Amino acid sequence: MLHDFFDIISREEFESLLLSFAPTSIEIKSISDAYGLVLGEDIFSPEDLPPANRSCMDGYAVHARDVFGATEGNPAYLEQCAQLRVDEAPDFTLKHGDCAAIPTGGTLPDGADAVVMVEHTQELGSGTIEVRKSSTPGEHTMLKGEDAAKGENIYKAGHTVRFQDVGLLAALGIGSVKAHIKPRVGIISTGDELVEIEVPPRAGTIRDVNSHTLRCLVSKAGGIPANYGIVRDDLNKLKTTLAKAIAENDLVLLSGGSSVGMRDLTVRAIESMEDSEILAHGVAISPGKPTILGKVGSKPVLGLPGQVTSVQVVMLSIVMPFIRHLMGQKDSFACLDRPILLAELERNTPSRQGREDYVRVILKQRKGKIPLAEPVYGKSGLLRTMIKADGLMIIPADMEGSYAGEQIQVWLI
Amino acid sequence: MLHDFFDIISREEFESLLLSFAPTSIEIKSISDAYGLVLGEDIFSPEDLPPANRSCMDGYAVHARDVFGATEGNPAYLEQCAQLRVDEAPDFTLKHGDCAAIPTGGTLPDGADAVVMVEHTQELGSGTIEVRKSSTPGEHTMLKGEDAAKGENIYKAGHTVRFQDVGLLAALGIGSVKAHIKPRVGIISTGDELVEIEVPPRAGTIRDVNSHTLRCLVSKAGGIPANYGIVRDDLNKLKTTLAKAIAENDLVLLSGGSSVGMRDLTVRAIESMEDSEILAHGVAISPGKPTILGKVGSKPVLGLPGQVTSVQVVMLSIVMPFIRHLMGQKDSFACLDRPILLAELERNTPSRQGREDYVRVILKQRKGKIPLAEPVYGKSGLLRTMIKADGLMIIPADMEGSYAGEQIQVWLI
Repeated sequence: MLHDFFDIISREEFESLLLSFAPTSIEIKSISDAYGLVLGEDIFSPEDLPPANRSCMDGYAVHARDVFGATEGNPAYLEQCAQLRVDEAPDFTLKHGDCAAIPTGGTLPDGADAVVMVEHTQELGSGTIEVRKSSTPGEHTMLKGEDAAKGENIYKAGHTVRFQDVGLLAALGIGSVKAHIKPRVGIISTGDELVEIEVPPRAGTIRDVNSHTLRCLVSKAGGIPANYGIVRDDLNKLKTTLAKAIAENDLVLLSGGSSVGMRDLTVRAIESMEDSEILAHGVAISPGKPTILGKVGSKPVLGLPGQVTSVQVVMLSIVMPFIRHLMGQKDSFACLDRPILLAELERNTPSRQGREDYVRVILKQRKGKIPLAEPVYGKSGLLRTMIKADGLMIIPADMEGSYAGEQIQVWLI
Repeated sequence: MLHDFFDIISREEFESLLLSFAPTSIEIKSISDAYGLVLGEDIFSPEDLPPANRSCMDGYAVHARDVFGATEGNPAYLEQCAQLRVDEAPDFTLKHGDCAAIPTGGTLPDGADAVVMVEHTQELGSGTIEVRKSSTPGEHTMLKGEDAAKGENIYKAGHTVRFQDVGLLAALGIGSVKAHIKPRVGIISTGDELVEIEVPPRAGTIRDVNSHTLRCLVSKAGGIPANYGIVRDDLNKLKTTLAKAIAENDLVLLSGGSSVGMRDLTVRAIESMEDSEILAHGVAISPGKPTILGKVGSKPVLGLPGQVTSVQVVMLSIVMPFIRHLMGQKDSFACLDRPILLAELERNTPSRQGREDYVRVILKQRKGKIPLAEPVYGKSGLLRTMIKADGLMIIPADMEGSYAGEQIQVWLI
């Protein structure tokens, strides 16, 4: 069991607190702009796609039954009743024993249920076509509504728009959709020891790395980052900056506060805001335990560890899925939404029961086998551990570790 | 063997032709803007990181030897010679038998090689400190240069800047780097049958899906897309649009030309440009065979299939890695750069020898096992096949297929 000066809750509890925040508002976006965003509405197909039965080949529209069993040695013979153009909507019904020449993309006449490729036919003159290959209903055709039927619910609200979806929407003539807007995310670095990166280091100072990495990770998740600079250990200054960041953003991240004093300052600054509440004061994950969740009005404020690699892990495991949740994504914390690789653990890896452990691993590719995952040991204050890692392995809170040779899930970073 | 009206080359040959194009120019970018770009220079660490030996804990700086073997029952006793502040660079050498109180982040005095956590000590008064735990050299410290040593080649040109790298660069005070600029990619849709997506479909017309999906995939790869609309089957019109697109971009994509006539038009339009050459006239991949590579001046022009799903596969397998190559990425065609999952093939999947097959697959997650990959069959003209697919399975040109139960690599899309 963990004991600490503040109450620690499980990752699951922390997650449900995060999921209680409402997603961003919905706006009408062109489908190109909606790429990567999350739908804020169900989408129904306004029409059949394809709009009619179409040929996929240059050839002859036929009744499949009329050419069933046809071969080189025993061909079928049909009468050509029409020569269809690609832009023609035929107004006749194909009779048995007849065929109609049709180009790729051409509309099938009523009655026709297959297309015979031109390569398997021979024009014998005076309208007779020899067919040397059997056919089956539907062959070389795309049927009306086969891609989408009129009125069909093709997407549910909460679906993230992928490039393939942009294609289907375009094909259906849907030029714009309602999607959740990108959340604006304010980033504040706190700590007396921090200096801007241009400043040469001296004893007791550390360059402000987190402003830069958090900015990248917020963009990567789909948010719009805004940096509010470094705030030193001064409650009034922090209150002013925090109030401004809350007013201008949908989510505020405070990084720093790795010291107990600084954590107190973060909590006090959040509590000093009107209509505010501290929802969580620590979470049972490692690294990332001193993560604070507050609420100001309806907006979330997260106090993150200041330690450069811890905050990166907390961003990946908690904050980025939370940003996706704010963007309207369903199940944004479910691992399957993220690239996961099965790997074999190289060494026994202990973990303390009662907390979820995120262990950095290096993946070693092996021919014809799943990769080998080597845990990256080393001081967590070192940036190198994160630079070298290919992914994170998650050891659940109810386990005391994983053994060498076990198959593990690695979450690529 | 494949026989066709044009000469088909292998994917490897096509790839080496693509790799002969030079990457984009290099510009100085702030590290935030360089996120996702490719370095155009080797980066050397300008200083040691950390700049001095630092404590990772609140405690006492010691000679590890002085407290070796110390326990609760057999503590060591040291004299406290200093109380260091976090912003202090100590100007003394720690004598044996002495210790110095030090906060997290504080600089170690010369001589000290470990830190004992305050929890394992007791102040006995008049400067005597009782140490109840053994220590080893380096414990609870970060050594000067442990993250990066002054002059060390930390990144090679060709490395893609990840969020972790932005962090390390910031920590080293490197605010900007030389990186390859994003390639501008012109997109032209060709085909008499194409209409803008707002136009209601009628017989023989198809909405221009490719302008939209290509735009998404170009952005996803890191390029800047520019659409040049639909050009109908008119050589002069195509020449004018192509000349404009070549002048304004680093790469031009022509989609369409699924018909033989349209392919000819694409080739003729490219050949009509000054200083032009057709480098390849087909590639042995499926789908994607009718892919054309031309060169106008020093700029690449790709003629892609018009078929909505074929062009998506060609974008994923050829064009997107090529865009990464233009952005300066080394080995951009190597599969390991893309998310690859090991899966078990659900059914026998035939493939024609002599061409590389990209088979769309659905992944079925299974508890504690690698996922099952189900090939998506269905007409390649249907958008649904791509909508349903989770990834592509590649069957190499020298194989006739893969068998059910085989472990295969699936490339996530």
